[in-house]
Amino acid sequence: MHTVKACLIAAALSAAAGAVSAQQKPEEAIKYRQSALFILGQNFAPLAAMAQGKMPYDKDAAASHAAIVEYMSRLPWDRFGPGTERGGNTKAKPEIWSNLDDFNAKRDKMQSEVGKLAQVAKTGDFNALRTQVGETGKACKACHDDYRNK
Amino acid sequence: MHTVKACLIAAALSAAAGAVSAQQKPEEAIKYRQSALFILGQNFAPLAAMAQGKMPYDKDAAASHAAIVEYMSRLPWDRFGPGTERGGNTKAKPEIWSNLDDFNAKRDKMQSEVGKLAQVAKTGDFNALRTQVGETGKACKACHDDYRNK
Repeated sequence: MHTVKACLIAAALSAAAGAVSAQQKPEEAIKYRQSALFILGQNFAPLAAMAQGKMPYDKDAAASHAAIVEYMSRLPWDRFGPGTERGGNTKAKPEIWSNLDDFNAKRDKMQSEVGKLAQVAKTGDFNALRTQVGETGKACKACHDDYRNK
Repeated sequence: MHTVKACLIAAALSAAAGAVSAQQKPEEAIKYRQSALFILGQNFAPLAAMAQGKMPYDKDAAASHAAIVEYMSRLPWDRFGPGTERGGNTKAKPEIWSNLDDFNAKRDKMQSEVGKLAQVAKTGDFNALRTQVGETGKACKACHDDYRNK
């Protein structure tokens, strides 16, 4: 019962997102996903710097950055809809749309790692955070390597 | 006691944000605040369209958009630090930094209206949502009129 309800909610949200995307100009969709990923990157950067010892570890700052990374990681995906392969200054490779299952799998892997990152950042366990920053970075890179132009 | 603790937490978060801002290039800070406000605007637009009858009212979509608007409304402000008056393609007027108290008051007013918007959107009360979209739009416009170049 709960599963059915959850699926109905997910379907409704997905339909709503699709409706928004359909009305949106490709340039706006591209700017939207780039904006979300830029904010994500700007919050991941200090976590990476802390993990690498280039910035002093600060538990509260790390937790705040990781929470923003997690939130932003949910936003870009409904803006990769049909018609957004070209336009603006997109660096998205056309392979995204010919390998959608793999692209979505890499997205899911990233979101899973980012979810763990946000949890770990709250604990104040620096070693665990450092490990999870590494896992998250790998998940980001896996998708960028295959699907983002330099 | 709780107030003291809350203040210490706020001070720590503010210091952390300041530390990040200090390390950031002005162009990056400008792009960050613009990215956050772009995503905010893209989620406010369908709410305004629903309020104006230009898009069918959809409770779940409205709640989702309003929640994103609320979240994004928190992100831009620590990127208006010293040195970010110029650079990139900023539309920020220099009056922001000569009238910081007023700018911050308008920011607080907007965040208050956006908080109410997110609450109202969850209730499914369309008339209340329509009213609150109007109040939120006014709060956005008040700041744009004074502090954003066309």
